[in-house]
Amino acid sequence: MSAWRLVEDEPAAEQPRPERSRAGGRRFLVVAAVVLLTLVGAGGLAAARTGMFAERPDGCAKPDRTIQLYAVELPKDGTQVRLGYGLTPQTASYPGPLMEMVEGECLAITLHNLVPEATLAALRTNPDHPLGVSLHVHGVKYTQDSDGTVQSGSYVPSGGSRTYTWYAQPRNPKTGALGTAGYWWYHDHVVGGPHGTQGLAAGLFGGLVVRRPGDPKPDRTYAVVFGDRQSINLRRGAATDTCDEVDPQPGPTCLIARQGERVEFVVIGVGNDMHTFHLHGHSWADTRTGTVSNGQPFADSVPIIDNKALGPGDSFGMQLVAGDSVGPGHWMLHCHMQFHSDAGMSTMLHVLDRDGNMPPGMDHEHDAAPAAAAPAIDGGDHQHN
Amino acid sequence: MSAWRLVEDEPAAEQPRPERSRAGGRRFLVVAAVVLLTLVGAGGLAAARTGMFAERPDGCAKPDRTIQLYAVELPKDGTQVRLGYGLTPQTASYPGPLMEMVEGECLAITLHNLVPEATLAALRTNPDHPLGVSLHVHGVKYTQDSDGTVQSGSYVPSGGSRTYTWYAQPRNPKTGALGTAGYWWYHDHVVGGPHGTQGLAAGLFGGLVVRRPGDPKPDRTYAVVFGDRQSINLRRGAATDTCDEVDPQPGPTCLIARQGERVEFVVIGVGNDMHTFHLHGHSWADTRTGTVSNGQPFADSVPIIDNKALGPGDSFGMQLVAGDSVGPGHWMLHCHMQFHSDAGMSTMLHVLDRDGNMPPGMDHEHDAAPAAAAPAIDGGDHQHN
Amino acid sequence: MSAWRLVEDEPAAEQPRPERSRAGGRRFLVVAAVVLLTLVGAGGLAAARTGMFAERPDGCAKPDRTIQLYAVELPKDGTQVRLGYGLTPQTASYPGPLMEMVEGECLAITLHNLVPEATLAALRTNPDHPLGVSLHVHGVKYTQDSDGTVQSGSYVPSGGSRTYTWYAQPRNPKTGALGTAGYWWYHDHVVGGPHGTQGLAAGLFGGLVVRRPGDPKPDRTYAVVFGDRQSINLRRGAATDTCDEVDPQPGPTCLIARQGERVEFVVIGVGNDMHTFHLHGHSWADTRTGTVSNGQPFADSVPIIDNKALGPGDSFGMQLVAGDSVGPGHWMLHCHMQFHSDAGMSTMLHVLDRDGNMPPGMDHEHDAAPAAAAPAIDGGDHQHN
Repeated sequence: MSAWRLVEDEPAAEQPRPERSRAGGRRFLVVAAVVLLTLVGAGGLAAARTGMFAERPDGCAKPDRTIQLYAVELPKDGTQVRLGYGLTPQTASYPGPLMEMVEGECLAITLHNLVPEATLAALRTNPDHPLGVSLHVHGVKYTQDSDGTVQSGSYVPSGGSRTYTWYAQPRNPKTGALGTAGYWWYHDHVVGGPHGTQGLAAGLFGGLVVRRPGDPKPDRTYAVVFGDRQSINLRRGAATDTCDEVDPQPGPTCLIARQGERVEFVVIGVGNDMHTFHLHGHSWADTRTGTVSNGQPFADSVPIIDNKALGPGDSFGMQLVAGDSVGPGHWMLHCHMQFHSDAGMSTMLHVLDRDGNMPPGMDHEHDAAPAAAAPAIDGGDHQHN
Repeated sequence: MSAWRLVEDEPAAEQPRPERSRAGGRRFLVVAAVVLLTLVGAGGLAAARTGMFAERPDGCAKPDRTIQLYAVELPKDGTQVRLGYGLTPQTASYPGPLMEMVEGECLAITLHNLVPEATLAALRTNPDHPLGVSLHVHGVKYTQDSDGTVQSGSYVPSGGSRTYTWYAQPRNPKTGALGTAGYWWYHDHVVGGPHGTQGLAAGLFGGLVVRRPGDPKPDRTYAVVFGDRQSINLRRGAATDTCDEVDPQPGPTCLIARQGERVEFVVIGVGNDMHTFHLHGHSWADTRTGTVSNGQPFADSVPIIDNKALGPGDSFGMQLVAGDSVGPGHWMLHCHMQFHSDAGMSTMLHVLDRDGNMPPGMDHEHDAAPAAAAPAIDGGDHQHN
Repeated sequence: MSAWRLVEDEPAAEQPRPERSRAGGRRFLVVAAVVLLTLVGAGGLAAARTGMFAERPDGCAKPDRTIQLYAVELPKDGTQVRLGYGLTPQTASYPGPLMEMVEGECLAITLHNLVPEATLAALRTNPDHPLGVSLHVHGVKYTQDSDGTVQSGSYVPSGGSRTYTWYAQPRNPKTGALGTAGYWWYHDHVVGGPHGTQGLAAGLFGGLVVRRPGDPKPDRTYAVVFGDRQSINLRRGAATDTCDEVDPQPGPTCLIARQGERVEFVVIGVGNDMHTFHLHGHSWADTRTGTVSNGQPFADSVPIIDNKALGPGDSFGMQLVAGDSVGPGHWMLHCHMQFHSDAGMSTMLHVLDRDGNMPPGMDHEHDAAPAAAAPAIDGGDHQHN
């Protein structure tokens, strides 16, 4: 039994309220029994906590789907350690795999920590901090058992695994509870320190899209992570755009589409700094989906934007019709903070024509400082340049 | 009579407009009489101005309610001067008391400045700057007499008092004027310099909620002020969360609720820095109230978020159903800028179960650097660490 | 013919998706012919590209209106080079002329670059960077030929001219395409480097308002540009407000209106830093127009604000009824970041009474450090003080 007890009917001591405010504070009562837990290190901590909170959020009786996810050490980028999540160990990447859910769905993700303990120890900022990798998610529902934090013990030591349960809670017309459809993200919350700062800096993050039944489906989706040291998906300058003219491979470093395709962006902020996401030639509605139906009476009131500030932890997304009205071309996508874009925080959305061809004659070289000339991007420590 | 005169019908010299823009600029005429006022210091300034502007905003014929508010010097936090507003001198705190209004209401607040002049003099950045404390408010209506600024003379010398009138103007269906319902805040605008920077840094701020008739009432409300030096309500690390497991006292440093309660946050940014407000396990709609009714046709378009960037002066709020779907637990509430959370800009929303108990076995210690080990938080001067 | 080719029906290598995600990736095929262009410098670059992309966006068969715009070197501000756009060379200013369009309209702007090549060379950060001035616009539609970037070759060498075509695309009820009504801005994207950082810092920017048929018309519009070094329209302190009491000239440095007038602000962020726009005594809806109609069912949900964070590239706007309820007075307009406002990032909206008079006795002197005492504002390089 817990010492924490909240009992009603005595005015709260703090937060005095003016006369008109609703009557009835709350009283907190002392509860006699105080449970003392002897927690023996991180392992004991995790063990001690198992089963003390519900494993699954209300509404998820049983997972609808199961995913295996692997946390893996990837080749270093210069001196910077790189870690990634993957649906297989071989395909781990930064950002990690895009997750998609539909409201009402419950997803069980078993995270396997394949990152060597020595690597985690080297990233640790405090010798007392436990070693492990976790999965913390934004937007959807999860219990403390799936919080991915140290204090809830919901992380995974090297060589171990743990199942996290995410519930894309739908709207509840009776209670008025909101749904969870949106553009979200997931990330480590443990590597290096209690907020996973070193895990994030190394690459342990990815996008999550929760759709509402009836939402339009995009033709392709790109996660775009704006982070420290002027990085897009942890790259800078030429490294942000590796599209080969002859054999372009769409992915985090090759944003490409055909005119008329519905391109979806999941835009995520990580690290320490504010950024502004700007895309040339395209704009979107500042709504949940980036779109707005014309018939609706509020359509006139919705801001249409082509530049949006985001800070660490923020995520938003939108569906765009590639090249709508503006046609094919190499459309810049960059942070509009000038010293960020000048340092290489800039890439391209390459829009081909409806036949899949790029009109000739267009050099798409990035004029920003090439990544090769720049120091390795290691967003782990705080900086403002 | 004033020298300022704005007369119509001559094109403006600046801001040229394309051909299609509406016709008819405006002309500014010289008015003969120039009033010269001899202003003898701050007191004279205030005296000279009394009655020159309306005392009350249009729509407020007479205050509906009166509050006494005291500005008080509190015990220092290390070497940092602390000031607070209180409904009594004894209960002054930072943040100050939460104010609540309903649209249509007019509130008269008499501010008594009990802060010693010597304290104000020590905080002053310029020897010519007047000594006093003021009350500036966001969102609601007030005349220049209640602006709380030096240039309007609407501040209070030590030992003095002054009545400020706030009007929660309702929507006007005829003129289309907007209502003033929202999550707002109030603060000093005079201590130390013309923008009250030292008053804000010392603690002279508080939350204001203006409700619209029919708005749901929360079970409890917490003000959460994100400020300089990685502070939440001017505290950092362990000092942000003083909840006692045995006798938890809800307040600015103990955010606690029972599952199913409607918890309201008023989130405010002060100081110099951007922050991102993130709460684990809970999300809200990016609307005026943080909620959205399911029946409404635009409900599908509203972004649901769990992380929101805010800068100094910004304020927003929301009502959450504590533990909805996710159950009880120690849910982190932190700035998602990694170097901020790592430095202790992190606290907890403690959600107890429906009986008011916390499931056992959960250690809620903050892993962030304890406040004791950190230098005193004195957000008065600009810094980026 | 281009080497770029995007062909369907092979799974993408990156961005793995969970089982439920829609089937059908895309395949990228190698296309045989690779066009090699020999590009001989900037002039050759521009020449080589002419006609390779459509000159005008879809929907604009022919411009409805033509404007001549001049880029001009203005007198230095201290040591800081100043450039401006003007509808005539004589009226060039910073910000440049406010542009207004209506959805459905197509506008052709011929930019004449009157800035001496030596000036552009002195601003250049890289000797390989081409010399020129351009016009890049937010929100409305344009092809690569009007992108205003180096890589699209759409800029103007000194002494030259080039026509940019902007299309204020309206909503399309059939395709669901969004309209382009909004508060936008235009700026150079070439001076000094590939993101026009030195052109922006020198003053090459201005506001653009695109209205929807039926939108209310303001009585006056002011562009307010928040930029580096604590600047409003590149000025600071007393220089932000040059209103003469006897003969006030409305414009970028004299924001003035009569009570009851509809005042429109176009608020723009440029440079490197975040800011928060705050106006005393007035608030607005966080919608496309800053207003909301009372009859609409979502009106209850819209946040009303008086402080809004903005970063570089962001733009928003609103129409306010000057002095509504609060009456005449000198209403502060400032960045609410305390070290910004303390350094002089603060001006006034002077609201006169309905007869055009300012009630007497009100000193509107700015207490912030006068601009004369401050170093010249040269926002071109990155700084955080």
